[in-house]
Amino acid sequence: MTEQNGYHLKSNGDHQDEYLFDPNILQSLFKDYSLKDSKLHENNYDEKYLLRPLRISDYDHGYIDLLRQLTECGPMTYEDFKQRFNQMKQCFNTYYILVIEDINTDQQIVGTATLICEKKFIRQLAIRGRIEDVVVHNRCRGQQLGKLLIDLLTQLGRDKCNCYKISLECKDHLVSFYQQFGYNHEDKQNYLCQRFQNSSNNHQENKTVN
Amino acid sequence: MTEQNGYHLKSNGDHQDEYLFDPNILQSLFKDYSLKDSKLHENNYDEKYLLRPLRISDYDHGYIDLLRQLTECGPMTYEDFKQRFNQMKQCFNTYYILVIEDINTDQQIVGTATLICEKKFIRQLAIRGRIEDVVVHNRCRGQQLGKLLIDLLTQLGRDKCNCYKISLECKDHLVSFYQQFGYNHEDKQNYLCQRFQNSSNNHQENKTVN
Repeated sequence: MTEQNGYHLKSNGDHQDEYLFDPNILQSLFKDYSLKDSKLHENNYDEKYLLRPLRISDYDHGYIDLLRQLTECGPMTYEDFKQRFNQMKQCFNTYYILVIEDINTDQQIVGTATLICEKKFIRQLAIRGRIEDVVVHNRCRGQQLGKLLIDLLTQLGRDKCNCYKISLECKDHLVSFYQQFGYNHEDKQNYLCQRFQNSSNNHQENKTVN
Repeated sequence: MTEQNGYHLKSNGDHQDEYLFDPNILQSLFKDYSLKDSKLHENNYDEKYLLRPLRISDYDHGYIDLLRQLTECGPMTYEDFKQRFNQMKQCFNTYYILVIEDINTDQQIVGTATLICEKKFIRQLAIRGRIEDVVVHNRCRGQQLGKLLIDLLTQLGRDKCNCYKISLECKDHLVSFYQQFGYNHEDKQNYLCQRFQNSSNNHQENKTVN
């Protein structure tokens, strides 16, 4: 186990339990991390929490149950999870899922957020970031874990992935939360969406689309 | 060359000039395609335009110049373009860039739109679609090519990629255009964004992020 500025990162000795992305990227972020907000520092994460990329074994440590606090996840076998994990990993420099492990409760995952980096042709082969699927466990709220996740993912997107912009969608009551990190409504910009009933299950995708 | 319901698709005999995604997916869409809007039919696309996935050789047929009608693209060599194309292609089932080729003007690309499919753990391993980078050449506007692109990408996302939702961002004056395909504002949903000055160029990405 190595330590950088109060945050722990586990070494990855077990090849059966890979990280979704290289944890060294996070270490260099922590090294540069300026704890502007003293409250974050006082919370003393270093003795309670471990911040790291998602691992396959997180299936057994409450990762999916945590996502269920955000939205429906349906049934999911370990094989389903592992297959999707590997599909994400094969998309080079695309999926950055950060998790917070509670080191005092059998490595339970108590927080997660995802940065997705989209490759573009425009703006000289730009990268465009999106923050998705942010959730902190009910019992760990009020400890600014969400703030830590968004602050770090924003830095990751800006400084390591070279995103020219990062965006996210959120409900009304979360707007002020995200504004503190620099996310704002854009003038004359609209977000439009449509939802489909026909599929909440993509087990078929490999059969229908190459 | 094969034909499906008035739309042409080229066969891919030259392995040096690959498609970004399998054109057969489009063929099956065309087969199911009901031309509800008679204007689309009257425009007689089959003698003027060819609708197909992006190819590497589109670099020489005005694809980047077309994107420049949308936003800045900066300088881009053929090698830059090819590298990004291959990075996209390596992200399995993710990047669906559709182009419209004008068959009467040396195969110039006169329209394009992109569907990006994001892999999720939530909602039983759902796929979430996003429509990006939609542009029709100045001289081809008013022929409903944009409508064709969005209609087909929406069907592709819904029926072939099994997206549980598809979203997009657009300026105020385009809201009604997208509403005709079922895209709408969602209640209490906010789109927030931040832009960075430090990078519009990602040539460095392979050096800094694994």
